[in-house]
Amino acid sequence: MSNAVTKNLSTPGFQSDRAQIDALFEQLNRAYADHNADAIVAAYTRDAVIYDLAPPLMHRGLDAKYLAEWLATWEGPLGMEMHDLDITIDDHLAVATALSKMYGTKKDEGYKEFWVRTTFALRKIHGQWLIAHDHASVPFYMDGSFRAAVDLTPESK
Amino acid sequence: MSNAVTKNLSTPGFQSDRAQIDALFEQLNRAYADHNADAIVAAYTRDAVIYDLAPPLMHRGLDAKYLAEWLATWEGPLGMEMHDLDITIDDHLAVATALSKMYGTKKDEGYKEFWVRTTFALRKIHGQWLIAHDHASVPFYMDGSFRAAVDLTPESK
Repeated sequence: MSNAVTKNLSTPGFQSDRAQIDALFEQLNRAYADHNADAIVAAYTRDAVIYDLAPPLMHRGLDAKYLAEWLATWEGPLGMEMHDLDITIDDHLAVATALSKMYGTKKDEGYKEFWVRTTFALRKIHGQWLIAHDHASVPFYMDGSFRAAVDLTPESK
Repeated sequence: MSNAVTKNLSTPGFQSDRAQIDALFEQLNRAYADHNADAIVAAYTRDAVIYDLAPPLMHRGLDAKYLAEWLATWEGPLGMEMHDLDITIDDHLAVATALSKMYGTKKDEGYKEFWVRTTFALRKIHGQWLIAHDHASVPFYMDGSFRAAVDLTPESK
């Protein structure tokens, strides 16, 4: 959607919308690195529609206690790098897509690194952009194995 | 995002935006049932960012020939039912999320039925809504098996 920006740089307000959304993602990525569950939750609307990597199919809103427990399964910073970030911004709704590299050391299992597709829908509420929908996934192999494709990179065909 | 509609029913143009988007999804679901690859492609922008069920991580745009070959692996209609559809519409950008039930008979493998999370970002281009981003996925089991969770329903915990 690179060419799909419905505002351009000369539209009043665009710079600050884009700057706000960039700052939100920076805050989010720093929160993963710092194991700061509250800061992750603060980036989301209360009833955000979440399609997560793990079951169930969907849930609404993020739970700080559950997040903190999950973050504690990682030793030190959890890296979250957004690549190929593509943001489309309208008046009160924005969509961001990215291929995100997650990496870090699982306490039981050692170093992990894998690529995830991430889609965020953001809403501007009282002048502040928040994540109202988060869809994170990996594809799966349709060779009959039904294995989650956690070994792909953006270069994989 | 049920309460997240940035226009309401009294906003001029909303009814026709919503009606157009509903019609687009009806066209899409009918196209899957009818194995009409061209009608599926027609619902998308040429460079739509696609995060599909199968690898690779992402590709741009839909290929009618590839789609027709895939549709031909199904015997008779391929069902695609969108549940819990949630649409947020702004001036030129809309986001739709749904839990979609796919079902049909694979020529080699018999009847299949599974639930997929679907996120669509739509853009209004010259007055016409088209899908600019499509993210379809199932979660995977984080029990060390890395199995794709194709056995979930919206009721699964």
